[in-house]
Amino acid sequence: MTMDSLRELFEHELKDIYYAEKALVKALPKMAKAASSDKLKEGIEEHLEQTKGQVERLEQVFELLGVPARGKKCEAMEGLIAEGASLIEEDIEPEVLDAGIIAAAQKVEHYEIASYGTLCTWARQLGLEDAADLLGETLEEEKQTDLKLTELAESEVNVAAEAEGE
Amino acid sequence: MTMDSLRELFEHELKDIYYAEKALVKALPKMAKAASSDKLKEGIEEHLEQTKGQVERLEQVFELLGVPARGKKCEAMEGLIAEGASLIEEDIEPEVLDAGIIAAAQKVEHYEIASYGTLCTWARQLGLEDAADLLGETLEEEKQTDLKLTELAESEVNVAAEAEGE
Repeated sequence: MTMDSLRELFEHELKDIYYAEKALVKALPKMAKAASSDKLKEGIEEHLEQTKGQVERLEQVFELLGVPARGKKCEAMEGLIAEGASLIEEDIEPEVLDAGIIAAAQKVEHYEIASYGTLCTWARQLGLEDAADLLGETLEEEKQTDLKLTELAESEVNVAAEAEGE
Repeated sequence: MTMDSLRELFEHELKDIYYAEKALVKALPKMAKAASSDKLKEGIEEHLEQTKGQVERLEQVFELLGVPARGKKCEAMEGLIAEGASLIEEDIEPEVLDAGIIAAAQKVEHYEIASYGTLCTWARQLGLEDAADLLGETLEEEKQTDLKLTELAESEVNVAAEAEGE
């Protein structure tokens, strides 16, 4: 594969995050099922619906570019999901696992924040304003999700996890 | 492996980031070598030195906890590094590659921001103030590095990458 322009690199990155988001749609229900805090479970389920909307938004960006929506294997997201999955398989107290699930979810959010941040900047550089707006909407959602996870960890989950070990 | 407490989960995450940082010390020279912008090359070389300091800081945290400094394979960082490495191997214009290297580096930074953010919060929850302070120092460095990369991308590298495709 050759890449001679920022536009091609942009499409390459778009395929990466498209694959990543679709992989996440499959992984999130397992995380929700493994969570024991009701708030965490609900939060993950809400984010699953949001992620499905983000997949659709990416399909709109592909359409704007006039290229078919196709994913490209994203090894980083595979690794992030594998890390979360291996935690769920450990012999681990439920309250402690919840803290670990939040940590894994925040790593996923940060992957997406980095990726959408880059895509949004490249889209503006390329004069693709409509694509940039769509990507910017998702970027904001990912940042909000990350903040909500921090709040839930600090207000409830970490405290319960620590109490478990006493 | 069983994990009954937040303290054990904290040690587990510490081993993950210790492995990740050491893997990065090996990967960064290849990224610096592949970069063509002098500023980017220098930035990566500076961050390599900083990363070595972060490895030492983690060793101090292990010492504070009284456990041996040992890494645990971090699949996410392996994936992130593999993504950067595969980009370098593509047939890609140097200016476009620079934009891609920054994108890959920012994903790495965001992985670390998420991980140190979690570790720092857990350390405080566990009353490990000295460890939290050390982890917080690294967290700040990672955030600064991410900002510097954004600045370099927007002020120079993305513009050069786009000009290449014209």
